[in-house]
Amino acid sequence: MPLGGEGAPRPATLRDVAELAQVHPSTVSRVLNSAARSRVTAATAVRIRAIASELGYQPNLMARGLRTRRTRSVGVIVTDISNPVIPPIVRGIERRLGDEGYTVLLANTDHSARRERRQLEAMRAKLVDGLIMATATREHDALLAELRAMAMPVVLVNRAAEDDGISAAVPDDGFCAELAVAHLAQLGHERIAHVAGSPSTTTGLRRRRGFEAALARRGLRVDPELVTTSERYTLEEGARCFGELLARRAGEFTAVFAANDLLALGCYEALERAGLDCPGSVSVVGCNDMPFADRFTPSLSTIHIPHLELGRSAAELLLERLEDPAQPARQVLVAPRLVARASSARPGSAAAACGRRPTSDARMGP
Amino acid sequence: MPLGGEGAPRPATLRDVAELAQVHPSTVSRVLNSAARSRVTAATAVRIRAIASELGYQPNLMARGLRTRRTRSVGVIVTDISNPVIPPIVRGIERRLGDEGYTVLLANTDHSARRERRQLEAMRAKLVDGLIMATATREHDALLAELRAMAMPVVLVNRAAEDDGISAAVPDDGFCAELAVAHLAQLGHERIAHVAGSPSTTTGLRRRRGFEAALARRGLRVDPELVTTSERYTLEEGARCFGELLARRAGEFTAVFAANDLLALGCYEALERAGLDCPGSVSVVGCNDMPFADRFTPSLSTIHIPHLELGRSAAELLLERLEDPAQPARQVLVAPRLVARASSARPGSAAAACGRRPTSDARMGP
Repeated sequence: MPLGGEGAPRPATLRDVAELAQVHPSTVSRVLNSAARSRVTAATAVRIRAIASELGYQPNLMARGLRTRRTRSVGVIVTDISNPVIPPIVRGIERRLGDEGYTVLLANTDHSARRERRQLEAMRAKLVDGLIMATATREHDALLAELRAMAMPVVLVNRAAEDDGISAAVPDDGFCAELAVAHLAQLGHERIAHVAGSPSTTTGLRRRRGFEAALARRGLRVDPELVTTSERYTLEEGARCFGELLARRAGEFTAVFAANDLLALGCYEALERAGLDCPGSVSVVGCNDMPFADRFTPSLSTIHIPHLELGRSAAELLLERLEDPAQPARQVLVAPRLVARASSARPGSAAAACGRRPTSDARMGP
Repeated sequence: MPLGGEGAPRPATLRDVAELAQVHPSTVSRVLNSAARSRVTAATAVRIRAIASELGYQPNLMARGLRTRRTRSVGVIVTDISNPVIPPIVRGIERRLGDEGYTVLLANTDHSARRERRQLEAMRAKLVDGLIMATATREHDALLAELRAMAMPVVLVNRAAEDDGISAAVPDDGFCAELAVAHLAQLGHERIAHVAGSPSTTTGLRRRRGFEAALARRGLRVDPELVTTSERYTLEEGARCFGELLARRAGEFTAVFAANDLLALGCYEALERAGLDCPGSVSVVGCNDMPFADRFTPSLSTIHIPHLELGRSAAELLLERLEDPAQPARQVLVAPRLVARASSARPGSAAAACGRRPTSDARMGP
């Protein structure tokens, strides 16, 4: 399938094909549009198709999109493709939508609301059939309401919205926190700190609530002084928040649950700077099980979230909506599981010999 | 800037605005299209713009694209967004193009030629003004010739093509290998193995050639038996290739240069499986300095490639072409530098105490 005639200075048009075939352009259109093909004689159709292929003519899908308002493409908006959880989510989405013949166009907002607006405008201008957004924060409510008002099919992934009229595929965030606290409590930790994610994201909010509920459920003290709230899911922000907590309260806790793995790596950094070791001084448990979490020093104990499945579920939800826009919205919860590695140990245990130990892949899904 | 009228079942059209303003649709068009604005009275213009904003009317950029053949969007095609070097490249591209008001649409081919075709068709159908491709292999020559024939502005990034009629921003791959060999030779290594990247990519081919030239330049033996060629840049493929090399030739070399960091991590894995340690038995040097390379066990000595700059340079090249398509193609070489960490040491030295040591950031750029 040539993209253009060899040596041709511009792509061939419908008119070029019609001229060479000595028929009216509408005849060419009828031949190349299978739905209307029956109204042309077979001989003419064969001749026109041969000429079209020789010229490398490609129907202008965009012009067709303008008429049918369907382009079989879907926009996926993410905050930050360098966040290691995003690629597997996108891959899960692409695989499922690819099976149905959809093309995925990705846009990266880099955490900028202005940029996200522009990306959405561009997606809309290019007539995508639907959107999957991994960017939802509480500040998105107005934007989501607008998209809803213009009847654009939208599904959220990884983070949900307050508005439960929008379908979403998300991790079971409360259960992530429960698994982390259960693991640390079992090791004997009683004073556990938390580096929370931003409360304007459901991942941040629900993991924090889950953390507090899990402590309470075990009769452990819920101390707001041991919770620090990060503004972004980055290593630097984790180091900043946990560094401040250590400066204020070092010695008052023996473990920390970080709302994601990048924040957990920031905890490593803060501990190192404070001359403390992990897990000797403080056990660290992250959340996500990002690529290479088993390769860090020490290898990171974390809550595994199946991001590929998360993407696949979001794609499934969007396909449902595209098929029947009237379907009620629903939320799919994807189950996490604990992966215990070298960064968590009994309180006060010596640092592991060389930081890594084989993954004990404790499956504890609900 | 609302995307649609609140509660409106569909986006407002030009006609809606015209009707409410009691003017002809072409007048609305003239007002909202700054180039032709002067031909309407100021009062009318103000009135129409107020109505348009009230209705949340957005000009249909796609229809406008059909007329002007310019949509101020650029397609970026990558092989695999889960390869950690891709996000910074994309970010570099987005920043530079964003400055010029372009929107970037990303497509992920997942190493599939069929998928890449489909993505390119989709991009073309959506009338992107140009393309930046990070996917080039030797098998792309035909595809690139087609894109050229249809006068689609194309720039390559990270990998170049044989066809030097296409602009590209690439690392100085030969110099990457030179830096790695210089570092290992300085430590006292004389027998150095190489896990090469696929020779159908310029990164694989040029790094291998650079490796052999660097050995020869120092009077070190170039032994083809110590070179193994990977098919993909993945950890698994590195483990497979280096595992085979170890099975055949363990003990005959004291260091390995891997064509990228994922392959280097595969070398770690193969060494571990063979009961050998790094850098005690074999020093490992990678290439890229991917995120978290300093956090692995042992922390990875590697050649730093400034991927953000690579992306920025590619964007710059594309902007040049968009401005003046007749400009001759050119290749921008981005300079790498050595980052020595714990995975490389004198031959036969004991493993480092706990795998990590502070990065000695030896700047050796050309």
